[in-house]
Amino acid sequence: MMYDKIIYAVGIGPGKVGKMTQEAFDVLESCDIIVGYTVYIELLKPSFPNKEFASTPMKQEIERCKMCFDFALGGKKVALVCSGDAGVYGMASPLFELQQRNSQYADVEIIVIPGVTAANSGAALLGAPLNHDYCVISLSDLLTPWETIEKRLVSAVQGDFAVALYNPASHRRNDYLKKACQIMISAGADEGRACGYTQNIGRDDERMEICTLLELMEKEINMFTTVFIGNSKTQIIKSVNGEKKLVTKRGYEI
Amino acid sequence: MMYDKIIYAVGIGPGKVGKMTQEAFDVLESCDIIVGYTVYIELLKPSFPNKEFASTPMKQEIERCKMCFDFALGGKKVALVCSGDAGVYGMASPLFELQQRNSQYADVEIIVIPGVTAANSGAALLGAPLNHDYCVISLSDLLTPWETIEKRLVSAVQGDFAVALYNPASHRRNDYLKKACQIMISAGADEGRACGYTQNIGRDDERMEICTLLELMEKEINMFTTVFIGNSKTQIIKSVNGEKKLVTKRGYEI
Repeated sequence: MMYDKIIYAVGIGPGKVGKMTQEAFDVLESCDIIVGYTVYIELLKPSFPNKEFASTPMKQEIERCKMCFDFALGGKKVALVCSGDAGVYGMASPLFELQQRNSQYADVEIIVIPGVTAANSGAALLGAPLNHDYCVISLSDLLTPWETIEKRLVSAVQGDFAVALYNPASHRRNDYLKKACQIMISAGADEGRACGYTQNIGRDDERMEICTLLELMEKEINMFTTVFIGNSKTQIIKSVNGEKKLVTKRGYEI
Repeated sequence: MMYDKIIYAVGIGPGKVGKMTQEAFDVLESCDIIVGYTVYIELLKPSFPNKEFASTPMKQEIERCKMCFDFALGGKKVALVCSGDAGVYGMASPLFELQQRNSQYADVEIIVIPGVTAANSGAALLGAPLNHDYCVISLSDLLTPWETIEKRLVSAVQGDFAVALYNPASHRRNDYLKKACQIMISAGADEGRACGYTQNIGRDDERMEICTLLELMEKEINMFTTVFIGNSKTQIIKSVNGEKKLVTKRGYEI
C-alpha cells in the first residue's frame, strides 16, 4: 500500500556516494527533500544538484527526526540520510519511537532503506574478520550505561564472537578502547588475539592497520574509527606482496 | 598498488540487482568473468548481457574459489559473487585461506567489495531491530560444532544483544530454530521477547512476520529465512495503519 506522507530512512553506506545501493540512490532521487547531519548533506549535494536539503548539527538527532515529520506532514516526500545503515545506531528507531509517542505523526509511513554499515565495509578493507558469527558493540556511553557495554564485551568473549566496535573513542572518551581491551583480556581473550581497525572508510584519507589485542590498546584512534577484534581462531595471514589480512575462518576444510 | 591478477569477492546484497552498491555493479562491469552459485549467476545475467559467467552448484564452495584462482592466473579479471556481504558467511575468507595454503596463488590480489548482508536488509523490512548492539549467529552446524552455536546463543542472551539468526533451518535441520529458542529461553530470555523473521528478501515472494519468542518456536521457516530476536527492551510498536514494527531503541530521550 502506498501512503502520501512518507519518510525514508536511508543508509548511504560509508564515505562515498558510489558506496550506497542503487535503491538508496533512486530513493534520494525520488524525494522532495533530503535531511541529515551536515557532513553527509555536503557529501550528497554534488550528486543531487537540484534537490532541496536540510540539516541539523550533531547531537540534534531528535530535532532532525521531528523536522522530517513536519516536512512529510507538509506534503513533502522526505529522505532522512544516515551514514552506513539507517538501522544500525541510526535514525530508523527514533523515527518509529517518535511516531508511537506523537499521534499527529500517525499517518506518516516510515520506510527503512538499508546500507552497508561500518562493520561490513571496514571488514572488507581488513580482509574477512567477520566471516563467522560476530557482535557489533558501541563503546559510546552517551545513551547506554557503561555497565551494559562492559557486560556485552564480556559476553562477546565468553561466546567467542568476532567483534566490531563502533564509537571506540571521542575527545571525552580517549581511554575507552584501552578499557574495552582490558575488559576483554580479563574475560579470557588472549593478548595475542588478531585485531585491526579502519579509519575514514571510503574517503581519501582512508587507512587501516592490523595488530594484536595488546598492541591495539596503545593505538591512537579517533571517532571515525571502527575496531575489529577477532575470535579465538581469527588469523593474521599474508596475502599478495606480504600484505597482512585479518581472516576469521568460515570452517571449510581447505 | 595495482596487480594484474585480481579476484574481487563481491557482495551483491539481497535478491535484486538494484540492492547492490554502485561500487559492486561497477566492479562486475569491469571484470572479464563472473563466478558464483548458479542462482546468483542467473539473477545477474540480464544486467550483464555481454559478460562471461561460470557457476558451480551449492556445497562446492571451495571448488568455486579454486576456479577463480585458475581464471585469475590465466589472465582474467575475476569477480566471485556472494549474496549479501562477501565477508559474512561468504567466500572472502576461503579465498584468503586458499591463498595462504597454495603458493601458486601467491601473486593473486584479493579485494573484498562489501554488500548489504541479510541481518541489515531483513532488519529494514521489520523496522529497526538491530538499532543497538547486536549479534549475528548462524544455526548451521555443517561447519561449526553445535556446542559452539549453543554457547553463542547463551552468551547473546547474557549480553542482552539483539540477535540475527542466519541459516535457521534446512530439510535436515527443521527443528533447529525451536532448539535455539529453547536455549535462549533457558538462558533467561522472556517468552514474550519481541521477535520477527523475513523470507526471500528483495524477491517477489518477500514476506515477513513479527511475533513473540514463544510464537517464533512454532513457525514453519525455510533456508531463505533470517530470524530476529530482540534484546530485553525491543518493542513491537504500531506504525502507520496499525502495521507492526520491531524496534530496538537507540536510547534517546523521546
